[in-house]
Amino acid sequence: MDFNAQLDAALKRLHDEGRYRTFIDIERRRGHFPKALWNKADGSQREITVWCGNDYLGMGQHPVVLNAMHEAIDATGAGSGGTRNISGTTVYHKRLEAEIADLHRKEAALLFTSAYIANDATLSTLPKLFPGLIIYSDELNHASMIEGIRRNGGAKRIFRHNDLAHLRALLEADDPAAPKLIAFESIYSMDGDISPMKAICDIALEFGALTYLDEVHAVGMYGPRGAGVAEKLGLMGRIDIINATLAKAYGVMGGYIAASAKMVDAIRSYAPGFIFTTSLPPAVAAGAAASVHYLKTGQELRDQQQENARVLKSRLKALGLPIIDHGTHIVPVHVGDPVHCKKISDMLLEHYGIYVQPINFPTVPRGTERLRFTPSPVHAPEDIDRLVKAMDALWSHCALNRQQLSA
Amino acid sequence: MDFNAQLDAALKRLHDEGRYRTFIDIERRRGHFPKALWNKADGSQREITVWCGNDYLGMGQHPVVLNAMHEAIDATGAGSGGTRNISGTTVYHKRLEAEIADLHRKEAALLFTSAYIANDATLSTLPKLFPGLIIYSDELNHASMIEGIRRNGGAKRIFRHNDLAHLRALLEADDPAAPKLIAFESIYSMDGDISPMKAICDIALEFGALTYLDEVHAVGMYGPRGAGVAEKLGLMGRIDIINATLAKAYGVMGGYIAASAKMVDAIRSYAPGFIFTTSLPPAVAAGAAASVHYLKTGQELRDQQQENARVLKSRLKALGLPIIDHGTHIVPVHVGDPVHCKKISDMLLEHYGIYVQPINFPTVPRGTERLRFTPSPVHAPEDIDRLVKAMDALWSHCALNRQQLSA
Ligand SMILES: Cc1ncc(COP(=O)(O)O)c(C=O)c1O
Ligand SMILES: Cc1ncc(COP(=O)(O)O)c(C=O)c1O
Repeated sequence: MDFNAQLDAALKRLHDEGRYRTFIDIERRRGHFPKALWNKADGSQREITVWCGNDYLGMGQHPVVLNAMHEAIDATGAGSGGTRNISGTTVYHKRLEAEIADLHRKEAALLFTSAYIANDATLSTLPKLFPGLIIYSDELNHASMIEGIRRNGGAKRIFRHNDLAHLRALLEADDPAAPKLIAFESIYSMDGDISPMKAICDIALEFGALTYLDEVHAVGMYGPRGAGVAEKLGLMGRIDIINATLAKAYGVMGGYIAASAKMVDAIRSYAPGFIFTTSLPPAVAAGAAASVHYLKTGQELRDQQQENARVLKSRLKALGLPIIDHGTHIVPVHVGDPVHCKKISDMLLEHYGIYVQPINFPTVPRGTERLRFTPSPVHAPEDIDRLVKAMDALWSHCALNRQQLSA
Repeated sequence: MDFNAQLDAALKRLHDEGRYRTFIDIERRRGHFPKALWNKADGSQREITVWCGNDYLGMGQHPVVLNAMHEAIDATGAGSGGTRNISGTTVYHKRLEAEIADLHRKEAALLFTSAYIANDATLSTLPKLFPGLIIYSDELNHASMIEGIRRNGGAKRIFRHNDLAHLRALLEADDPAAPKLIAFESIYSMDGDISPMKAICDIALEFGALTYLDEVHAVGMYGPRGAGVAEKLGLMGRIDIINATLAKAYGVMGGYIAASAKMVDAIRSYAPGFIFTTSLPPAVAAGAAASVHYLKTGQELRDQQQENARVLKSRLKALGLPIIDHGTHIVPVHVGDPVHCKKISDMLLEHYGIYVQPINFPTVPRGTERLRFTPSPVHAPEDIDRLVKAMDALWSHCALNRQQLSA
């Protein structure tokens, strides 16, 4: 068995398809984000502006977060030293769980090391708690949900993206007595579109299904206290399990679910991905708690982010660039080919100091490769201006298509 | 469908079996570990000594680690702000990967958010790279390995714990042309026993199988540079993939694999659990790198840990307590019943300020419930003395069995 030859073949497939990934090595500088230093392969450095981060509100450099982390390190040290059950539960973890439960107005919350593992562990454990559970999953759900749903080979049905009629048809086709759960996201992060949440909740009610909602790309940014789209729409009480991350708008790391006390207790007790791993460092939990707490009132950051997104989108649109606009903070520009996409990204970085990673398969379907810009409150008007001009110049240089300007 | 009734039933099973878990809320105090404060449910606090942590060498409070974390926070902020591919690769991640590759004398290393996800993601991705792969897995392998091996329904064979004849028989029964991998641990953390590593490597060579070794409970602590048992035995070069954690002896958080450059590149490119999640905070990577670096020469901590383990084991043995001694740093005392085990643990905490979590199913097989002590270099002689006396008193109080003292 020639293992190396097989590895070569696997890697060659990626090169051939133009989707071999090279990680850009960047160094953010506290207080200067979205500016950062790019460490080039040749050892030289260059200042760049990060346009593709998910530190959506710049909380990753906010003094309340950094101070909380410093204080926790000074008070308690580095790691937690154990799994949650075996010496790894601290007052920092409990406080953060209380902060999150309050955020989502749920009885309880449960921390995981990431939202990836929160999705994977929870969705793979639910069929153990509800034997025979059928999970109805939006086809564009994140990889972590897909992995969790697939893991134990439980029953699943994939409904077409945001397609209520299809969801209903699938539900109608199944045994009315079977336990059911509908898993979906609030904002789909690669297109920036929003799910028809109220209608899904209505369908869930009609069929007696549980609702499972990933708010990873919405928490901190939507709703009067930053609890996400469900809060904004007044639907939080109709979602049985809310999943989200502490690593994007909250700027730190970690993930969680928020749900009823019973549900949280059962997942806590049965999910291997929760049980068998070291808990988050206290300093990470402290930073995240400070961030969640701050954003319960930090409306000015949310407003500024929306304003910057609005400006960027309208300027790119005015140039006829093929942007996908669903009214959220995410600004995807469609390219449709992995090689082109990488080339434009390389030119933006090399010639303009603008860093936006090309997004290709398997993160998005083949043929929908894109650049995905994430304007934040810490992007200045000059940053936006430079980005728009660079895109205009590159689009002309590469003779790429522009959309007809509608009126 | 009454979801709440099902949750009640699931939780009741745990209560009935005496293995419902209550997390003890503790607050370590930097510079005073293994001392910590226990936050009781009634709101009062009490000083305790932690005897069950996996911060095996006290690196979680070591100034080189804490300073590295503080500096990274000041330099760069809190979270990384992205997945490794999308703006989440920093010089801190690269440095840590280089430090780890050097530690294990491998061409490359790949960071994950935990060793749990490193095991799960790697073992579930290998069958994609090597179609038809059969994984031979020790029956006592950690939950994270089991989850990874099970995930995609690939072929697996479970061999009896450390049983070379059984492993060989399973290998012989399979198609010689099929790609194969043997997955095992160096130190099994619940018994503290060591695998017959050289013999397993010989068998792997004979059958052309890859070797996958979890050194989670050995890194930092064994081998002249702390690279683990494989280093100590001079076998590192014969292990294809080494997995370990940055959250136990290294005192911080995170996990990794170390392997050939090609292997790492392929896992990096194909493993969803690596690709689709925010990378570790730079400060966590910085703290871990400082810890790995420090322990490449920190032999005095390793020696002191072994000495404390030796003293504790010989004193408990002298009292006839049923300890399991395989010559490693882990000191399990067999109880064999979840209710007794919890009771002794509760009494140690309440009456003696000694914190050792009861270990029960599913962490260990039913009927093998135990207390598991983890002496470290920062446990003082007085701590050991108090522990030994408390155990002696409790064993008498509860009229528990003692072993015949062998000469
Ligand atoms: C043998 C073994 N492997 C892997 C892990 C997971 O390590 P981590 O805590 O980094 O997820 C653990 C314990 O947590 C373990 O005991
Ligand atoms: C929709 C969605 N869910 C979950 C995750 C995982 O979050 P985390 O980075 O905390 O693992 C991501 C991205 O990383 C995501 O985009």
